[in-house]
Amino acid sequence: MIVLGIDPGFGRVGYGVIDYTKNKYKVLEYGCITTPANSNFSKRLNKIESDLKEILSRYKIEAASIEDLYFNTNSKTAIKVAEARGVILNTLVNSNIDIYEYTPLQAKLAIVGYGRAEKTQVKDMVKKFLGLEQMPKLDDTTDALAIAICHTHNLRFNNFIK
Amino acid sequence: MIVLGIDPGFGRVGYGVIDYTKNKYKVLEYGCITTPANSNFSKRLNKIESDLKEILSRYKIEAASIEDLYFNTNSKTAIKVAEARGVILNTLVNSNIDIYEYTPLQAKLAIVGYGRAEKTQVKDMVKKFLGLEQMPKLDDTTDALAIAICHTHNLRFNNFIK
Repeated sequence: MIVLGIDPGFGRVGYGVIDYTKNKYKVLEYGCITTPANSNFSKRLNKIESDLKEILSRYKIEAASIEDLYFNTNSKTAIKVAEARGVILNTLVNSNIDIYEYTPLQAKLAIVGYGRAEKTQVKDMVKKFLGLEQMPKLDDTTDALAIAICHTHNLRFNNFIK
Repeated sequence: MIVLGIDPGFGRVGYGVIDYTKNKYKVLEYGCITTPANSNFSKRLNKIESDLKEILSRYKIEAASIEDLYFNTNSKTAIKVAEARGVILNTLVNSNIDIYEYTPLQAKLAIVGYGRAEKTQVKDMVKKFLGLEQMPKLDDTTDALAIAICHTHNLRFNNFIK
């Protein structure tokens, strides 16, 4: 099955498309949707939608796995990330893709085995799972791949796939 | 000029379409987009998009005026409102409508003349400005009309229209 992982944001949206078939992972594509900081915020949201649509058009994506938002501090940034996340969710609905949401804690648990794992541990495991020669440059992309893997773990755990 | 005012939300999105020509206001339509509480959140976002598109298709809207988000407390609700607001902004961009954002304080200042105005004062002035026989039932709708008026005030103040 092909899963799209998404790390939401407004300046950078990390994404990773993975294929998980017969217990094996294959990375199809990963990267970052970026929006120009000097551009109007609504236009940035619109670029996220159109770039995401383009990615969706390239694969037969069966599920999208996206990070849940939790903010300890209330900030303008948090609101902007949420606004972008809303656009992402809606774009996925428009493409009839099932959406699954996981917290960063759930992603860590699924990948490293415990919730207090360090970022480097998560990175190492993502690299190992996906057989990558090197890690993506940006954390956003790694997080997106991690959340995609998290979804396959969850499905396996619940016996939806084998 | 035809202005759409929007009070963002995810369960209720207040909206008001007003025509402001030659110093006179005319209300074309107002109401509330609602989404079912028992429905999947992403689907609720999607309903907001499609209902909004329908409203936009009925008028030659020249500008949209939307409330800025400020939250004192950080909450799940705040994030959800922001997610819905992102969808609204993006829908407006897709329809090539210019977006103007005002804080509740700016709206009160524009309509009642001072920022600490009570809700009932704002309501009274909205009713007066628009020549309504009675106020809309929901606060969301009143706020949407207020934010639409706020935009015309701002334009007049800055001499864009007369």
